[in-house]
Amino acid sequence: MINMLLLGPTEDLEEEEEKDVKSGPIEKDLGIIGLGPAGLTAALYASRSGISVIELGLEYGGQMGLAMEIENYPGFEMISGIELADKMKAQVEKFGTKVVYGEVATIDKVDDGRFHIKSDMGEFIVKAIILATGGRHRELGVPGEKEFIGRGMSYCATCDAAFFKEKTVVVAGSGDAAATGSLALSDVGSKRIYWTSRSDYLKCEKIYIDRAKDRENITILYNKQIAEIKGTNTIEEVLFSDGTSLKVDGVFAEIGAIPNVELAVALGVELEEGLMKIDDDCRTNVAGVFAAGDVTSKIVNPLMRQITTSTGLGTIAALGAIEYLQGLKTKQH
Amino acid sequence: MINMLLLGPTEDLEEEEEKDVKSGPIEKDLGIIGLGPAGLTAALYASRSGISVIELGLEYGGQMGLAMEIENYPGFEMISGIELADKMKAQVEKFGTKVVYGEVATIDKVDDGRFHIKSDMGEFIVKAIILATGGRHRELGVPGEKEFIGRGMSYCATCDAAFFKEKTVVVAGSGDAAATGSLALSDVGSKRIYWTSRSDYLKCEKIYIDRAKDRENITILYNKQIAEIKGTNTIEEVLFSDGTSLKVDGVFAEIGAIPNVELAVALGVELEEGLMKIDDDCRTNVAGVFAAGDVTSKIVNPLMRQITTSTGLGTIAALGAIEYLQGLKTKQH
Repeated sequence: MINMLLLGPTEDLEEEEEKDVKSGPIEKDLGIIGLGPAGLTAALYASRSGISVIELGLEYGGQMGLAMEIENYPGFEMISGIELADKMKAQVEKFGTKVVYGEVATIDKVDDGRFHIKSDMGEFIVKAIILATGGRHRELGVPGEKEFIGRGMSYCATCDAAFFKEKTVVVAGSGDAAATGSLALSDVGSKRIYWTSRSDYLKCEKIYIDRAKDRENITILYNKQIAEIKGTNTIEEVLFSDGTSLKVDGVFAEIGAIPNVELAVALGVELEEGLMKIDDDCRTNVAGVFAAGDVTSKIVNPLMRQITTSTGLGTIAALGAIEYLQGLKTKQH
Repeated sequence: MINMLLLGPTEDLEEEEEKDVKSGPIEKDLGIIGLGPAGLTAALYASRSGISVIELGLEYGGQMGLAMEIENYPGFEMISGIELADKMKAQVEKFGTKVVYGEVATIDKVDDGRFHIKSDMGEFIVKAIILATGGRHRELGVPGEKEFIGRGMSYCATCDAAFFKEKTVVVAGSGDAAATGSLALSDVGSKRIYWTSRSDYLKCEKIYIDRAKDRENITILYNKQIAEIKGTNTIEEVLFSDGTSLKVDGVFAEIGAIPNVELAVALGVELEEGLMKIDDDCRTNVAGVFAAGDVTSKIVNPLMRQITTSTGLGTIAALGAIEYLQGLKTKQH
């Protein structure tokens, strides 16, 4: 929600296309679902090749859009996820990609082999699809969690850190997101950050551990699994499964992502370990449906969830879709 | 050669390391061979994770370094290959990667499982290797070709176009390099550019064909295979296999790249279709040796030779090398 506010009002479709909405679905060559680096790169390559592209999504910049500071995307020493998404979006629009902030409800294969996309921002008929739907946050699944969402419970430290200046918080998680989240909270001046891992180690990049140890307001705690979150109006206390507890104002769950595969499954796309199964050309088992980014079987290792791997796969998916569309064109002659 | 001149004098090793050269090979955790986007991204991820990295190569920016205008790397609407390489290099040096312009002569596995790199800029002992050696230009293989190199014969239109203002040239090739090369020559004001394909089609991105057709100084010719290049001091004429000829001042061969696999082969790395065979974690068959970029079996399709796919593979190779090095560390305890 915070990201949507940063974006300003949802962009309107151009007048010409508004008319089309009234008269029926807008037709495009390629539909891309997802506004993260995989989808935006796919749009760049596809629209630059001269095919018409509609790109739809709700999360601007995808998971990248949640990052306040990115320093591992080659070419930028330091940039925010939103800034990088802005640059990528401007680039794809320059080549004619239509970017629409909308929630896709369904994608159905129609009789002529094309696909019918229904969204809250209109309907579209496309000849090929690239699914770059990314992931969403994983929940702790403990009592009190849902109750305190927006009242101390958060899934994005880099988004919400600013609200916890001079507050005491627990960050749950052992990966890069928990690490960068703890550092972001330290940066904004949280009073005390308890960075907790369920096990006796941290699985994030070593550089983050070194940095966290240098911060006076970060305490790393091992073997701490959250069992319950308590409070009245807002969070006041966290109970751990070892019987200990901490008085805190906020809890950040940074424990990974769940791939958004619902649209894929409905289309008949085969999964592998819960991710969309793709070949080396980013093809799924469904003709005309390609996939790219964190949501694919090429990114089983969570450490590989990087902007670079997403832009790489977005490129390959676009090349696959371009070739597929050229094939359709040849058939029509 | 032109790129080397742009770089200024070869960077010296720091004083401290100069001493090491005299006393024996410099020891680092990881050696990366290649200065293109794959190698630079691998260096970014590896050095950011806290391991020590030496990166060696002769071609600054790799094939990317030859590009005058890049508009398909997400985040930059337009940037030159050298500018982008400069940004990536600054980024890896910030995290401690030692970048050295040097030619690697040999890499040998030593008895303790480490690798001994011998180069014209010193010797290095590393625990793991990432080969990101990219490719080099393919030659036409016709009489006159070698004779006129530097006197009208070129393999990089984007590098040498400026020398052919108001001149007439032939560009041989049907891919993106030939397309962007023809456009670059048009941009600098060549009098006439004959863009020739050996077959009856062009295999580059469609957008380039549209653009070339809009240029008054570009003529596209199909079924034209160069048979001989003639002249006295410089190129004067090109003969084609169909018996026709053209009076020209220059010939640009933009007909693809040959992967640089010599070091890999000497190390015992298995090839597949002439490229280094790697798994999804960028591991070769040799323990401790990883590979990334255009030189790998993940990039069989020449259209996939993109900066994005190289940065994606560079990331994965670095993650693989980091894990391998962590494994070595654990064994030592």
